[in-house]
Amino acid sequence: MSNKFLAIAIATTLAGGVSIAQITPPAIIEDFKPSELNQPGQEYPQVNSQGYARFKIIAPSADSVRVSLGLGGRGGTKLKQLADSSWVGTTEGPMDEGFHYYNVRIDGGKFNDPGTLNFYGSTRWESGIEIPAHDQDFYALKAVPHGKVEQILFPSASTNTSRRAFVYTPPGYNNNTKKRYPVLYLQHGWGEDETAWSNQGHANLIMDNLIAEGKTEPFIIVMTYGITNNARFGKIREFKVDTFQTVLIDELIPYVDANFRTIAKPSHRAMAGLSMGGMETHTITLNKPDVFSYYSLLSGGTYTPEEIKDKSKVKLIFLSCGSKEKPEGVKNAVTALKAGGINAVSYISENTAHEFLTWRRSLHELAPLLFKN
Amino acid sequence: MSNKFLAIAIATTLAGGVSIAQITPPAIIEDFKPSELNQPGQEYPQVNSQGYARFKIIAPSADSVRVSLGLGGRGGTKLKQLADSSWVGTTEGPMDEGFHYYNVRIDGGKFNDPGTLNFYGSTRWESGIEIPAHDQDFYALKAVPHGKVEQILFPSASTNTSRRAFVYTPPGYNNNTKKRYPVLYLQHGWGEDETAWSNQGHANLIMDNLIAEGKTEPFIIVMTYGITNNARFGKIREFKVDTFQTVLIDELIPYVDANFRTIAKPSHRAMAGLSMGGMETHTITLNKPDVFSYYSLLSGGTYTPEEIKDKSKVKLIFLSCGSKEKPEGVKNAVTALKAGGINAVSYISENTAHEFLTWRRSLHELAPLLFKN
Repeated sequence: MSNKFLAIAIATTLAGGVSIAQITPPAIIEDFKPSELNQPGQEYPQVNSQGYARFKIIAPSADSVRVSLGLGGRGGTKLKQLADSSWVGTTEGPMDEGFHYYNVRIDGGKFNDPGTLNFYGSTRWESGIEIPAHDQDFYALKAVPHGKVEQILFPSASTNTSRRAFVYTPPGYNNNTKKRYPVLYLQHGWGEDETAWSNQGHANLIMDNLIAEGKTEPFIIVMTYGITNNARFGKIREFKVDTFQTVLIDELIPYVDANFRTIAKPSHRAMAGLSMGGMETHTITLNKPDVFSYYSLLSGGTYTPEEIKDKSKVKLIFLSCGSKEKPEGVKNAVTALKAGGINAVSYISENTAHEFLTWRRSLHELAPLLFKN
Repeated sequence: MSNKFLAIAIATTLAGGVSIAQITPPAIIEDFKPSELNQPGQEYPQVNSQGYARFKIIAPSADSVRVSLGLGGRGGTKLKQLADSSWVGTTEGPMDEGFHYYNVRIDGGKFNDPGTLNFYGSTRWESGIEIPAHDQDFYALKAVPHGKVEQILFPSASTNTSRRAFVYTPPGYNNNTKKRYPVLYLQHGWGEDETAWSNQGHANLIMDNLIAEGKTEPFIIVMTYGITNNARFGKIREFKVDTFQTVLIDELIPYVDANFRTIAKPSHRAMAGLSMGGMETHTITLNKPDVFSYYSLLSGGTYTPEEIKDKSKVKLIFLSCGSKEKPEGVKNAVTALKAGGINAVSYISENTAHEFLTWRRSLHELAPLLFKN
């Protein structure tokens, strides 16, 4: 893992990856509605049509209430106490479209907003808010045939426990009992876990919609927890990939091939990961060129042509990031890979940073390219 | 729904269902360990070998911090601020074994404990703590073959959306592709949702362990959200069962029978529910005697012999509750049902109240009795 990658991952993750779209804020339009990620029946937080977020916290005798969103590293949004004793505040400017983690500081303690659902990020279950994206239709819940997300517990001798993974099987999997499917192993980022891709990532809905439109071949997606050594939580520098590689290659893949109708060949196996999961993908695909043929790093670094020892074994390298990250790095890497004779594709998510809308869009672009050749 | 049921459900649910096992507390043994439901890496809350819980909350400039657990309706446990500015407190006495929901009051606002995982109860995602039960082995994660918990999205014309359910399929389901299975439809309680039985209920682990011991026939369990009308959240009196009955009978069951290898006959279909889910089970099984043959109410009321119009269609009625609820009501109902010629079984969970250890144990007792005759 390069120091550059570390710096990006830590800086953007710790800041919540949030940036303000405009420095001079426009007049606020008072059309706020509850965020779609609110707990049932909860009115706050709210989002308006410009992407402003408004928070309301009940803590009558608190001295200070602050939300981590709104100004990235600059302290977030300070709420003010109203006459009814509730604390209310609106972000100083519109936020990027998509999903944002956040937390609430109350009198110096870090809590979640009781109004929202929680999502595992930054090594804790955090509050989440969704700024509706103009292209949200591709991950919307629609009246199309739906695949399933299955929780499996697979035996792991190397870590001496049963480990959890989530497996997406496409619509029709249960009925076409002769058909076999390719598999994408899809990893979360630092501070997240195996719930991320189906909760905040909507991987299942992205696939259901693509399949309904005939835009991708149906395939299975397997998502498991990518940290298996004893790295203390929050200590990314202690992370080592080798123990996870053992779990993935020697335990999870054989279990999936034995228990799902997979096409158990390298030509029908892909690995992708976001951020730290991209680093894992980079290392493991290079260590195990006979296991995967499709490699993808989402805001998770790049490959050089020199790293690919046998080009005939790599069917696709897909690299992506948000336009607010380092898009030139991704584009230049793909140019070099292509010049080196490797089938490589880049994708830049417009107006997004190191956050989940980048990765939802990346999966949406990646899926149709997988298992095609 | 009887007023008595309502009163019990509301009183025990709102109080967190927690009671103190002893009035004169013994000396506290200082062997506290992190609760098994803590978020990764979190040291607090802690539980000792006597069942005391100790909480620690960081909120340096707060005026008051209180945890809802410890004294039921009497205000819970007040934390005290230590010299390091953290807030710490221990329950006044030992708590009942098993799972408890709770929340934290900080300066008058209701939040979750950042140390714990959250569980949907009381119509919100709440903090959870587990007091290790002497019989916890029956729901422990063991090195046995594991079934899967699948999230499905099924089309619901009556509510004009895709609705979520979780489906437990037993070990071997994917490999024995000829075998068909009976199905238990299993409902959560008021304020909970379709996540309850597999999260705090451990239904999947209870089944995996029973199947590994040869104590139950493998069967499928289907868990969905039991509130489908527009009852405002938290307003149990607005709840109506008829719209849920339509979803269950006309939409979910046909979907499950079409997409899983079920034995699609009333003789191989059971319905059970806890608390409000028991009320639903009571109403729907009586309304639809040609759909289910096995009925079970867990802390969720009783049947009278007069309610059963055709005894030949009822293979089993299983009624249960905690010994701290109204066990005589359950026992007397079963005596009357038996006298009326109905195969009825009662189960009383010792030293538990209207909480999930009662229901974990009830499922553990119920499963071996299902689909036997």
